Amino acid sequence: MEADILAENRKLGQEVRRLLHSHNIRSVDVMGSIGAGKTLLIEKMAVEMGRMGIKAAVLAGDVTGQDDFDRFRDAGVPAVNVNTGKECHLDAHLVDHALEELDLDSIDFLFIENVGNLVCPADFPLGADHRMVVISVTEGDDMIRKQPLIFLESDIAVLNKIDLLPHVDMDIDRLDADYAKFKKGARLFRTSAKTGEGIEELFKALNIHA
Amino acid sequence: MEADILAENRKLGQEVRRLLHSHNIRSVDVMGSIGAGKTLLIEKMAVEMGRMGIKAAVLAGDVTGQDDFDRFRDAGVPAVNVNTGKECHLDAHLVDHALEELDLDSIDFLFIENVGNLVCPADFPLGADHRMVVISVTEGDDMIRKQPLIFLESDIAVLNKIDLLPHVDMDIDRLDADYAKFKKGARLFRTSAKTGEGIEELFKALNIHA
Repeated sequence: MEADILAENRKLGQEVRRLLHSHNIRSVDVMGSIGAGKTLLIEKMAVEMGRMGIKAAVLAGDVTGQDDFDRFRDAGVPAVNVNTGKECHLDAHLVDHALEELDLDSIDFLFIENVGNLVCPADFPLGADHRMVVISVTEGDDMIRKQPLIFLESDIAVLNKIDLLPHVDMDIDRLDADYAKFKKGARLFRTSAKTGEGIEELFKALNIHA
Repeated sequence: MEADILAENRKLGQEVRRLLHSHNIRSVDVMGSIGAGKTLLIEKMAVEMGRMGIKAAVLAGDVTGQDDFDRFRDAGVPAVNVNTGKECHLDAHLVDHALEELDLDSIDFLFIENVGNLVCPADFPLGADHRMVVISVTEGDDMIRKQPLIFLESDIAVLNKIDLLPHVDMDIDRLDADYAKFKKGARLFRTSAKTGEGIEELFKALNIHA
């Protein structure tokens, strides 16, 4: 049963990817705990991409409510609200349906903001080109040891809120070393969605250029 | 029948990806015509990665023979030869078997050199984190219009042999414009495997850092 659900999701994920590719849309599945700063990071990136001539949209996933969706809309970023009801992660079926609400021909890049959670989303790839996990400096320097699976399943990892580094007690070198054990040669990106620091480097890893 | 084969390949591809991730291995599926320079580009990248402390290996796919495999071995890069017999592309099943011949715990990054062909590989994702298509300046400036599918299915596209640009009659701006139509904001990378030019930028898109 469990295996069937996972296999079915993977198959649907591939269909989502093909649908997006057929509309020339690139995409990233953004995962992370509540409070990691996913929404602001996506908002800042999407607005900056608009300045670069790249039209970004967001699927805003949440268990309930539409707070994130409202923030994107207020920032002028096309968005669709996706509520999971009780599930702690999006799945490819929900994404497939949500895409029906977007004008795919008017979009160049899609951010999928997953439900705030570091565990459940790992096993449910959504078909996005990239999977990006976001943690914040306030979550401690043992995050990678505690939640290895989501870091293994992601091709991009971001340490956000680095503007708060002087105010928190965390060993950033330990985090880097832990990440390098999993992904030798891959960089743990450092961003501040608040100040914009580090977003340029992140764009390069997502192959986003002016 | 055809649909079953594609679905089965996609399922196996996901298993390959999970196997590689469980060994902390990142990977790229390198596609392109015969003569695009895939082998030399991979060789240069793998050797440079060795200097950076990142252990790269190669699955060398070919219809028959082991010329590419020999080149990698001569360059000191761990490699496995994979012959498809008559198929014009690798598939996830072949990759899965070939991986049994590698010591996965001693590898950080895997290049999968697909069979030299711009058409067949597109429909058969192998489970790699990235799909990279390589064309060369000698193939003309209408490559993207002629073979859109493989560019859509790839997250990275490379124009190789740019050292030959002064000697060929091709409009590189046309190629860039065609690519931008498909992947707005994504860069068509330019490399010379011969001189090493452009490899540093390509490393950033693959999230490969010293």
